[in-house]
Amino acid sequence: MIRIAVDGMGGDYAPKVVCEGVLKALRQNPGLFEVILTGPQEVLTSALGQAPELGTVLKIHHSPELVAMDESPAEVLKTKRNSSLVECVGLQKAGLAHASVSAGNSGAMMAACLMILGRVGTISRPAIACNIPLRSRKVVLLDCGANVDEKPVQLLHHGICGSVYAKYVLGVESPRVGLLNIGEEEKKGPESIQETFQLLKNSNLNFIGNVEGRDILKGETDVIVTPGYTGNVILKLMEGFYEMHQSLFGNIDTENGRWFTKDWNYSNTGGAMLLGLSGTGIITHGRADAMAIAGAIWAAYQMAYSNLYQKIATQLEGHS
Amino acid sequence: MIRIAVDGMGGDYAPKVVCEGVLKALRQNPGLFEVILTGPQEVLTSALGQAPELGTVLKIHHSPELVAMDESPAEVLKTKRNSSLVECVGLQKAGLAHASVSAGNSGAMMAACLMILGRVGTISRPAIACNIPLRSRKVVLLDCGANVDEKPVQLLHHGICGSVYAKYVLGVESPRVGLLNIGEEEKKGPESIQETFQLLKNSNLNFIGNVEGRDILKGETDVIVTPGYTGNVILKLMEGFYEMHQSLFGNIDTENGRWFTKDWNYSNTGGAMLLGLSGTGIITHGRADAMAIAGAIWAAYQMAYSNLYQKIATQLEGHS
Repeated sequence: MIRIAVDGMGGDYAPKVVCEGVLKALRQNPGLFEVILTGPQEVLTSALGQAPELGTVLKIHHSPELVAMDESPAEVLKTKRNSSLVECVGLQKAGLAHASVSAGNSGAMMAACLMILGRVGTISRPAIACNIPLRSRKVVLLDCGANVDEKPVQLLHHGICGSVYAKYVLGVESPRVGLLNIGEEEKKGPESIQETFQLLKNSNLNFIGNVEGRDILKGETDVIVTPGYTGNVILKLMEGFYEMHQSLFGNIDTENGRWFTKDWNYSNTGGAMLLGLSGTGIITHGRADAMAIAGAIWAAYQMAYSNLYQKIATQLEGHS
Repeated sequence: MIRIAVDGMGGDYAPKVVCEGVLKALRQNPGLFEVILTGPQEVLTSALGQAPELGTVLKIHHSPELVAMDESPAEVLKTKRNSSLVECVGLQKAGLAHASVSAGNSGAMMAACLMILGRVGTISRPAIACNIPLRSRKVVLLDCGANVDEKPVQLLHHGICGSVYAKYVLGVESPRVGLLNIGEEEKKGPESIQETFQLLKNSNLNFIGNVEGRDILKGETDVIVTPGYTGNVILKLMEGFYEMHQSLFGNIDTENGRWFTKDWNYSNTGGAMLLGLSGTGIITHGRADAMAIAGAIWAAYQMAYSNLYQKIATQLEGHS
């Protein structure tokens, strides 16, 4: 049975909304996974109330300390070993859980995953991958801000991570990998992007060449590779689009409108996947609601169930 | 009297739509400027028909050759000196016009402006600046793809160009200049962005610090500085968002909807300003309609009338 550790005290609305999300995930998918909530025993017990899952498919791992949203990641790792966030990752390292999910301090969660779980295979640095919601499919964008000043080989590795994710989690048979650039031609763009083009072209990925900003929302690419600086700007600009749309038009009551209001609302989305770890880590938006928490747990289950990180390790072999 | 040279044969719908745009601009702004259209005399005369402006505020400069949208810029400069595009810039160099506008091959227009007009003052490289349309104001984004692998001092220069543009063309008293980054803190982001932060902080610009992707559409910044790779992706992602929005919702018949349909339609927008030239150049979208051509001519008039490039030269002094 897959066991997922969830930081019960992470995010702006913890523990209440986290507990609601956990119960939602367990009830929607009975028999598929169990959840271990980390946090102060008493606080979590009170937040869960009379939930019948408690003690069977839902357990509490007592972790008395709390991590604030603005604490320095290095400080958290040094001084808060018994926090709900660090323990949530520690349970995975100890073999008691298969995945870790937190809506808390994202820098601290990234650092905890990196330091406690470590990197997978020959990868230089993990990436943050996010799903961009299109009407008929999802597109994996990475890196969304875990790295800066990446070397071409790192971008190649991120392309491999994204491709394996799209294949085994999104179910795309042969994921089309595009390199984000300012034009279609090989010789366009920054030097590191031109070098990455050659690495991707000579890899065994289904590399479809350069794609442009306009192509991100077109659905002709399954995985889009770009440096963390640009990926982060894209992700946050999409949040800005959503906010602008809502302030201009509000909720539009058509099928497309309901889809947009739900899928483009970044506090509803499942979260950022850390790809390239020796394990499974997901960072959810601090403002995540119960549905988003449930979505992140489901994504963690899919990643853990498909042994995603071992598959990434296999793909990385020979691409160092 | 300000004279604006317009490439009569540039863009997907030339010469018809260019001529319509020129006449629209002249009729909307009588007495402010004259236009010189470049292209084959006979073709342009026929396209203009019985326009009463011809021979008074509208003149034709015969340029027999044409530049295709996919010709190499270097080749165009070498072999097509008598083309409508190159002559459109040449008239400015010869002192016969104050600004040049083309909806043609954008790489060739950029190269022609750079080679024929040259750079202004101590600037290292010009930038492509675009106006991002917000509901109540415009935000200047640069660079939108003229450069790659910029050094920090180039990004500082682009911040100066954008600030001078916002002040003298958009009429913002003390433009707020933001540096696009993945977080607010000084120590965030790529090394070159961190170095740029220090240069901007020590400049005499109204530097408000790092801004994130989410802030682009918020209207709390007047000028946003980012490398050309990222700026180009942003600009094209905005086009992609517009296309997605139109396909999901069509034209929305409210005040906000009419604004969005008009101002976010990239074939309607005025075009990309080349800032940092020793002169005035504007590249309009190849699919520009008559309104967009008229808008680009108006923008060129504003830039020429305000002596923008000399003002940029003055600001650049002491910032090399």
